[in-house]
Amino acid sequence: MKISAVRVTPIAIKDPALLNAAGVHEPFGLRSIIEVVGANGMVGLGETYGDAPVLGLLTRAAPSLVGLSAFDVNGMLARLKALAPQVSTGHVEMELAPGSLASNLVTSAFSAFEVAFMDLQARTLGIPLVELLGGAVRDKVSYSAYLFYKWDASVDPEYAPDPYGEAVNAAQIVQQARKMIDQYGFESIKLKAGVFDPMEEADAILALKAAFPNQPLRIDPNSNWSMATSLKVADKLRGSLEYYEDPTPTLEGMAELHKATGMPLASNMVVTNWAELKRSIELNSVQILLSDHHFWGGLRATQALAQTCQTFGLGLSMHSNSHLGISLMAMTHLAASVQHLSYACDTHYPWQSDEVLVGGKVPIVDGCVHLTNKPGLGVELDQDKLTELHEAFKVCRIRTRNDVAQMQRYRPEWKQVKPRF
Amino acid sequence: MKISAVRVTPIAIKDPALLNAAGVHEPFGLRSIIEVVGANGMVGLGETYGDAPVLGLLTRAAPSLVGLSAFDVNGMLARLKALAPQVSTGHVEMELAPGSLASNLVTSAFSAFEVAFMDLQARTLGIPLVELLGGAVRDKVSYSAYLFYKWDASVDPEYAPDPYGEAVNAAQIVQQARKMIDQYGFESIKLKAGVFDPMEEADAILALKAAFPNQPLRIDPNSNWSMATSLKVADKLRGSLEYYEDPTPTLEGMAELHKATGMPLASNMVVTNWAELKRSIELNSVQILLSDHHFWGGLRATQALAQTCQTFGLGLSMHSNSHLGISLMAMTHLAASVQHLSYACDTHYPWQSDEVLVGGKVPIVDGCVHLTNKPGLGVELDQDKLTELHEAFKVCRIRTRNDVAQMQRYRPEWKQVKPRF
Repeated sequence: MKISAVRVTPIAIKDPALLNAAGVHEPFGLRSIIEVVGANGMVGLGETYGDAPVLGLLTRAAPSLVGLSAFDVNGMLARLKALAPQVSTGHVEMELAPGSLASNLVTSAFSAFEVAFMDLQARTLGIPLVELLGGAVRDKVSYSAYLFYKWDASVDPEYAPDPYGEAVNAAQIVQQARKMIDQYGFESIKLKAGVFDPMEEADAILALKAAFPNQPLRIDPNSNWSMATSLKVADKLRGSLEYYEDPTPTLEGMAELHKATGMPLASNMVVTNWAELKRSIELNSVQILLSDHHFWGGLRATQALAQTCQTFGLGLSMHSNSHLGISLMAMTHLAASVQHLSYACDTHYPWQSDEVLVGGKVPIVDGCVHLTNKPGLGVELDQDKLTELHEAFKVCRIRTRNDVAQMQRYRPEWKQVKPRF
Repeated sequence: MKISAVRVTPIAIKDPALLNAAGVHEPFGLRSIIEVVGANGMVGLGETYGDAPVLGLLTRAAPSLVGLSAFDVNGMLARLKALAPQVSTGHVEMELAPGSLASNLVTSAFSAFEVAFMDLQARTLGIPLVELLGGAVRDKVSYSAYLFYKWDASVDPEYAPDPYGEAVNAAQIVQQARKMIDQYGFESIKLKAGVFDPMEEADAILALKAAFPNQPLRIDPNSNWSMATSLKVADKLRGSLEYYEDPTPTLEGMAELHKATGMPLASNMVVTNWAELKRSIELNSVQILLSDHHFWGGLRATQALAQTCQTFGLGLSMHSNSHLGISLMAMTHLAASVQHLSYACDTHYPWQSDEVLVGGKVPIVDGCVHLTNKPGLGVELDQDKLTELHEAFKVCRIRTRNDVAQMQRYRPEWKQVKPRF
């Protein structure tokens, strides 16, 4: 099955004013939608970051992949490696999205194309993609409610109104959780923290615990807390967390924190590649790895990662950035194939109102995305929607995600400080 | 693609009187040939150990796999796990063939079926199996000349005559190497040791070095040397070895030896599963892992193993037991897909005169097996040959490999001692 065309379409998708350690989400998130067309006319889909550096490499690489076998992902990797030095890497790196790091550029591009190649393989075969990953060990994948402190859209006319409104205190966070769980049925909860006073944020976790006593809880300040703060929060939340995600920066810091508290620490910030994983294992920095096929090298690399985690006694969960349904389905097929992945995965999906798929948004029922028997990823691209969101990209001022600059629009004195608290 | 039948056929293949640490090869080696038949009438092939415990599980499992998708290797694994406790594991374990260990039973059976499932997948698609592994990073795979001390077939009428004759000293080993290299073009050499006085065996390496100055050399006494002996041989062979394979038993022993000598140590004896790999990494016992898809969990698991080796800075090569062409082609497709596998692989293949393939033995040219564009593994089963070798199995007295008992036929006082020297 030869590849006859590869299309890369950048899109801009509406995003609410979600607060985090770096600042605030911009009113649009950028994604790249990939279509890999086979000689049989079938199309494999992929989705990844839309930031300029990744988009640059994807766009440059696309024509060079024509003529490859849809199975030859190793050949695709070789072509990406050959092109990478020609693509500028002088860009703002967004640590919250490890795929945007220059060091991860080829891996991120590979990951995106690998999904599309495998989707085309599976469609050609008439089988769900999960079968190319060894078959499903579960027929549905659990996701967690991903709560954010946030501003109401009224803060700036650039933001589109969203159903959740403001959340700047514990009561509003509980209200947000209630609304999201009522709609999607999530059975575990993650709070993005690192925004307000850490003790207030810990109080929000305790408020969630009171409101949802049976839901596993996680807190994630994106490495924005000092050791002293991380220890104080750990004291307060001992016994209340499923895992403690990226409280403090550096592998050494995480190792020290784990030694001091015994709490299971999770990360997608200090372990973002194989070299960091090796070091983490040596130091015992992280006990649960938050994998992400978008920057770990795709679906099969994430399966290898699962094997490594199993070998070294690490837990495995799944990280997410803002994304649409193609990424969600890739995560779902992958998660369905990995026995060792035993936590509900993160997803930003409820925060996105846009979608490029025929039929609109992928349903999340009882907190789960269900696999179907449809070929490949099981979803189809709506070309009108794609065009519409590409037009939105064209008129959008954003080319590389920058939550810091966005925050400086509202608070000119804002600086990226790490750790802030 | 549903599976409509699974056939497991045990065969006995002629084997010469090859000497090793345990004793001597029996006149027949046992293999299981697996045929997985798809609803489309195509047949996927696999080959593995034919010893009673593995054969028992394979035979028991075969009917339970009917109806599975040929892609559902995870489903296949679940069925094997369910059956394993019902299969006797009270058997002679052959440490030289880690697949025969009871602890590896399910993994060995999975590995065998996984190859056959993937061969059927690839044949159904009309593509070489390597494409399902991500595509070839090389179009041919190098193997090493695998030298053995051996007796001439005249020692016992049970042995079939072979072209190599006796090799019980350095001169005969050099002669054997010359003959094998002339025929197959191998560009690296491994000597199976652990048989005679270790200093004599080291002299054989030096004789090989003089005769083949440009060939990388390896020596493998199957963990049959004490620390003191291993150190003495290391002193003598410093600068003459590509790697030093399984000189001494235990992960702790290997770690001590590496620390003392700085020589790169390779193993398929002290690292045979993920738990041992973890421990080896912690201790720095082994610097080069000798992988073997037959007991590491198949082709994709070996790819994950390659990633782990790369992550932890370990080299990767490939181990072999006596085998025919189906195993050789599975090794070749796998090796062709793994960038990180950078050594010539071991193979016993030149020692086997029997073959079950149409057209007879797979050619080895310039030390390499070449990939072709044929679907799947690229080889076809000769049913007449299969029947003939199955008949040989039926009349063969051997049901579980036992090199110790075979040696006791000629030397009644022989005992398995480890380390012997």
